[in-house]
Amino acid sequence: MNPFVYENPTKLRFGINSVASLSQEIIRYGKAVLLLYGSGSAKTNGSYDQVKEQLEQAGCRIIEHGGVSGNPLLSHTQQGVDLVRQHSLECVVAVGGGSVIDEAKAIAAGALYSGDLWDFYAKTATVTKALPIISILTLPATASEMNGFSVLTHDKTHEKNAIGAAPILNPKVSFCDPSFTMTLSKEQTAFAAADIISHLTEGYFTTSAEILNPQDALIEGAVRSVIETMALLQKNPQNLEARSSLMWTATLAWNGILQAGIPHAQLPCHALEMPLSGIYNIAHGAGLAIITPHWMRAMSDVHGSRIKRFGENVFGVSDSVELVINALKETYKKFGAPLSMKEVGVDEIDRERLIQDGVNSFTNRRISGYDERIIRKIYESI
Amino acid sequence: MNPFVYENPTKLRFGINSVASLSQEIIRYGKAVLLLYGSGSAKTNGSYDQVKEQLEQAGCRIIEHGGVSGNPLLSHTQQGVDLVRQHSLECVVAVGGGSVIDEAKAIAAGALYSGDLWDFYAKTATVTKALPIISILTLPATASEMNGFSVLTHDKTHEKNAIGAAPILNPKVSFCDPSFTMTLSKEQTAFAAADIISHLTEGYFTTSAEILNPQDALIEGAVRSVIETMALLQKNPQNLEARSSLMWTATLAWNGILQAGIPHAQLPCHALEMPLSGIYNIAHGAGLAIITPHWMRAMSDVHGSRIKRFGENVFGVSDSVELVINALKETYKKFGAPLSMKEVGVDEIDRERLIQDGVNSFTNRRISGYDERIIRKIYESI
Repeated sequence: MNPFVYENPTKLRFGINSVASLSQEIIRYGKAVLLLYGSGSAKTNGSYDQVKEQLEQAGCRIIEHGGVSGNPLLSHTQQGVDLVRQHSLECVVAVGGGSVIDEAKAIAAGALYSGDLWDFYAKTATVTKALPIISILTLPATASEMNGFSVLTHDKTHEKNAIGAAPILNPKVSFCDPSFTMTLSKEQTAFAAADIISHLTEGYFTTSAEILNPQDALIEGAVRSVIETMALLQKNPQNLEARSSLMWTATLAWNGILQAGIPHAQLPCHALEMPLSGIYNIAHGAGLAIITPHWMRAMSDVHGSRIKRFGENVFGVSDSVELVINALKETYKKFGAPLSMKEVGVDEIDRERLIQDGVNSFTNRRISGYDERIIRKIYESI
Repeated sequence: MNPFVYENPTKLRFGINSVASLSQEIIRYGKAVLLLYGSGSAKTNGSYDQVKEQLEQAGCRIIEHGGVSGNPLLSHTQQGVDLVRQHSLECVVAVGGGSVIDEAKAIAAGALYSGDLWDFYAKTATVTKALPIISILTLPATASEMNGFSVLTHDKTHEKNAIGAAPILNPKVSFCDPSFTMTLSKEQTAFAAADIISHLTEGYFTTSAEILNPQDALIEGAVRSVIETMALLQKNPQNLEARSSLMWTATLAWNGILQAGIPHAQLPCHALEMPLSGIYNIAHGAGLAIITPHWMRAMSDVHGSRIKRFGENVFGVSDSVELVINALKETYKKFGAPLSMKEVGVDEIDRERLIQDGVNSFTNRRISGYDERIIRKIYESI
């Protein structure tokens, strides 16, 4: 194992009607609130109304900032920062999925930073302080509700970059009510599941083959749990127990506990995916489902033994990397996740641009071992 | 899943030489320190010297309180509280295993409480505040380094009671250096492993049979990881990777993350074990290895399907509860953990006293479904 520091102070309130305690929690962090949400689902799944009621009950002054996009944009974030400053707001409340919570983090950090907000994402500045963030989760996938990560897309360059600043950017309190996820579409659920599996497996695949990693068996178990849960949701999307299970597994998958101490863990599929969703504005989980099998094939010389271990313990298949790839593709297909860019409506792929952005993406994430040749090989295979 | 609140602000610094940052961490919490340790191992494994050096480097005023026993006693704890008051100490630094950290929590809470410290453990008072606690772990087993639990034994009545007061009693920072565990005896390691497996399985065994629990597969994976790690330590007790793995798995097993949301989870084996170690002063892990197979047999009508699921996914054995019990006993035997009171030097068992204390233990822990008849049956079978 590698040395590590684990610090995750987020208080998680999980369960139906957990938002009922928001009015008690919020007053510890401020009564002047930026209320952030997306393009409408918060208003249809009931979360927005509950949150609004709670904030009013606590006597909060509320400034709303709706319309966060699936891949949150720098420009919309900057508007949020301006609202915070203009109205002297003290706290950011995010109602939504990973995108909304990621933008909340960017606003919370940007509001206390005198420079250009993009500096953080260009890695020319480091987050040292932020306003308190509270999240109400409606789409489980990124675990942004219990980590310090934030991903933002630059409107002009379409660069999609990630920052990590735990515990400063960890939400103070996150409310996870699985009933808010009952209205998610089959597609949204499939993208979420692909994202969760990617979070679980990236470090697992890329670590040294010969190490003793206490989390290996837990990670394999968590993936099997996602697959089992998704099978139940295929039968009945209104299965609340399955919705609860997926919600909690999403948090567990990327709150850092299953990754702590894994040596040489990297996120190459996330790095490869960022240009896909950055340029073509597809869902992050969709991009991961498309790119991961191609990455596995291209890197089978390096990570073959880990991929085969995964195949054996998750699918009961380990004779070859190709068989494991097929098993994973079958799994994604059953979820309803896409395996090609065509399936997400992108007929023409600008591969040169992908390669260029991909190289930058690996550099930005400081992932070593990937030169232009290998990045080209992967993008040319999709 | 059940609703739950998860909040665990402990900062964990894991790795060889992690104590090197103690001097930076301590100054956030106070410079007048009670330094707590056990009966000598902290001085032989090198942790005491490193901690002392760090505290001196930070300019701390140090009052020492050594001699914490394996089952920490109220009297020794009270002496610690007196020292804190007498010397106006601000912070408790625990160097040791679960016992030392548990006593540190008791002192930290007791120092700010005007009543009798035992009130907390008799459940007639609730912990509402405590001095900051910092722990340096030398024996991984109880996860006290990353939870809010504390167990104390009353000198006169031999009652051994547990309290849970997260996040108040969670250590602020815990240092986990696996090299400190290289000198643990085979026995100590075996007891630790039995304790870890018990933490992982108690809620797993006692939850409803028919639920979808996302953590099931993770818990099974963690148990397999403990067994794999212990096999490596049987071959070479100086295997640092295996020592690291066991240390981190111990924390994962009982920091709450794998238990969150499990419905109807109970701790009957812990309740049954408390009188064993309370009266006979045996190691907690030893008592758990002894009592667990008897509990499984006695409760097979109620929890049989969960026990069989466990058997299938951990040992590949599920035809009968008895086969699973045998597989677990074989595992404990391989670890070097005892399966009878005789093996820990107790030839005469006062079963009537065990039964009486056992009934109180279930009452104190508010565990329902166990009357005197079933508790008697279990103790009479050991």
